[in-house]
Amino acid sequence: MQLDFSYYNPTKIHFGKDSLAKLKDELSDYGDTVMLTYGRNAIKSNGLYDQVISILNKAGKKVVELSGVMPNPTYEKLMEGAKLVRDNDVSLILAVGGGSVIDCAKGISVSAYCEEDPFQKYWVEFQDVANKIVPVASILTMVGTGSEMNGGSVITHDEMKYKAGRVFPVDVYPKFSILNPEYTFTVSQYQMVSGVFDTMSHLMEQYFSDEGVNTSDYLIESLLKSSIANVRVALNDPKDYEARSNIMWNATLALNTLTGLSKTQDWQVHMIEHQLGAYTDCAHGMGLAAVSLPYYRHIYSNGIDKFVRFATEIWGVSPEGKTKDEIALEGLDALEQFTKECGIVTSLEELGATKDMLPKIAESTIILGGGYKKLTTEEVQGILEECF
Amino acid sequence: MQLDFSYYNPTKIHFGKDSLAKLKDELSDYGDTVMLTYGRNAIKSNGLYDQVISILNKAGKKVVELSGVMPNPTYEKLMEGAKLVRDNDVSLILAVGGGSVIDCAKGISVSAYCEEDPFQKYWVEFQDVANKIVPVASILTMVGTGSEMNGGSVITHDEMKYKAGRVFPVDVYPKFSILNPEYTFTVSQYQMVSGVFDTMSHLMEQYFSDEGVNTSDYLIESLLKSSIANVRVALNDPKDYEARSNIMWNATLALNTLTGLSKTQDWQVHMIEHQLGAYTDCAHGMGLAAVSLPYYRHIYSNGIDKFVRFATEIWGVSPEGKTKDEIALEGLDALEQFTKECGIVTSLEELGATKDMLPKIAESTIILGGGYKKLTTEEVQGILEECF
Repeated sequence: MQLDFSYYNPTKIHFGKDSLAKLKDELSDYGDTVMLTYGRNAIKSNGLYDQVISILNKAGKKVVELSGVMPNPTYEKLMEGAKLVRDNDVSLILAVGGGSVIDCAKGISVSAYCEEDPFQKYWVEFQDVANKIVPVASILTMVGTGSEMNGGSVITHDEMKYKAGRVFPVDVYPKFSILNPEYTFTVSQYQMVSGVFDTMSHLMEQYFSDEGVNTSDYLIESLLKSSIANVRVALNDPKDYEARSNIMWNATLALNTLTGLSKTQDWQVHMIEHQLGAYTDCAHGMGLAAVSLPYYRHIYSNGIDKFVRFATEIWGVSPEGKTKDEIALEGLDALEQFTKECGIVTSLEELGATKDMLPKIAESTIILGGGYKKLTTEEVQGILEECF
Repeated sequence: MQLDFSYYNPTKIHFGKDSLAKLKDELSDYGDTVMLTYGRNAIKSNGLYDQVISILNKAGKKVVELSGVMPNPTYEKLMEGAKLVRDNDVSLILAVGGGSVIDCAKGISVSAYCEEDPFQKYWVEFQDVANKIVPVASILTMVGTGSEMNGGSVITHDEMKYKAGRVFPVDVYPKFSILNPEYTFTVSQYQMVSGVFDTMSHLMEQYFSDEGVNTSDYLIESLLKSSIANVRVALNDPKDYEARSNIMWNATLALNTLTGLSKTQDWQVHMIEHQLGAYTDCAHGMGLAAVSLPYYRHIYSNGIDKFVRFATEIWGVSPEGKTKDEIALEGLDALEQFTKECGIVTSLEELGATKDMLPKIAESTIILGGGYKKLTTEEVQGILEECF
């Protein structure tokens, strides 16, 4: 641990079977009008919508609704919400759903009272937020992004074919988030494993950077191990409460800024996936899995000791009688085997990409430099070609 | 992970070589008068006192001083500080030192405006805090207690021969804590290993409870491993910045409530040590080490699977061809060997206890029930007898 850092995460988490009971008390800190923000029909068919509306009514809140937030939330949807907030003087945006809904809520929070073009200002130029911020809170129903306890907001600009992630400061973090693992029982296996891989990818993006010894790396390993062990249980029994709760909490901890402290961090896989997602609308976790394997095989030799540690610590690869390269590659083979075991889709073809998209995806990918190797656009394209 | 929990930790951490530079900005959130609270001469001889005074002066603060806070801070010292706070209308208590100084500052924070007997009310009857709370902040110079990011406050009532710990709610947590690993370079080896064992004991108190699979247990294992690996480096080179910084951050994370979430937790070792400390004034971490080994050997069979996991995961004990008992006990032997390797004192005689104290220590020990076995007073005495 060498780099200086500041750590401050004031999101309040209510976790467990009875966590929704905390909503009433939390609401008393906010004004009269709540904008309920959600996706398509899932929360209506499982009864959560009715429960939340009932609590809001009992608390005497006026409710405005923004529904239909899509998996990769668009700037258009965000602006629809921003207008609703202004028109109704909304005092709390309550996101009920997964990361997309919460990301969208944060985008609305900073955009409602922004007098310039918010997308240009916040997601292209990454400017600071100076205008009024509307408080956000969340009730989580899908697991993976960690958006329930951070400032991240990934928004897709359809017209520009550009999916951009932005980390906002703590004022934009959810004030509170309610996490009930039971809400995730009905999430499909496809979405569950996509979410788990998203969690694991967040962890690996932080892990595969820097030399030296860092408590953050030990923490990351522990969350990777817990993710792997618990998804195996949940694949067998999707209603195993313990497994689903560990999966849920792992996802939150994997991206609440804790595990990346003092590290430069990589995030190149996410940069490539964002553009892949902008062109294909694929499930985020599946896109990450597709890109991860060729990416790590391409760069591992630049951070060989960390990939050896990954192989032995996470996958139990025995180092005896093997070269570092052999150990590292065996670890990546184990990761690939795990994606197959979970039914994670790693073929770009199946995810809706065509080969002619690749140059455009590669060209529009942001190149970072925090990991073990700074890629060129040609290398990005080469990695994408190996995903077919 | 089965138990519901709420998690909310709004302490802001500034960590690293240049972290003291953050003090000036933080001070702007508070009123005119700061009470600088510290121990004996350490911060004067290493120059930190002058640096802090200079920043306070430049920020235009009036400074009141409470010095001489002792290793096991007394109620008498706390009341001296409480009077200073009232008499000077102090708006921020800035603790510069280790856990004792910060614990004392929190005690002062809740006691200054308490109209009853604060010790009776808060540390004996564990009542809620209804009176005004004075904000606390810290600059950490000794590592181990985790007091820099939690609500814990352990106070010793000399007259009553009673050392009592209390966890206050988030309003009493330090508003910000500044952690510079370089401040710990001059801490003696004795104090360093005592602090590391304190960290490890916090982790083990949380770990050795419950059945089942819990992300918190994985997190605990990661911090135990990091503690063991890094103290070995620091024993060899006390000025290894990386090792000292990992040791420092491990201590904070081990007791900022994160790693115990969803667990019942044990804390019986701390209860015994508190009374041992009340009678001997021994270094907290050394007292914990002395009690831990006979305690865990006494109770391990009631939580055998967890002790097996401890042996294999933390100490690399090979399970092949061994019974669970053999594996578990081999893990505890490894823990004992580690205490010897670090020069940790585990003999009660060396820590200043005499055999005639034991019945009184045992009788006054609070018995909890969160771990694998609820002790009787006779068992506590038996454990203490084995520490000679």
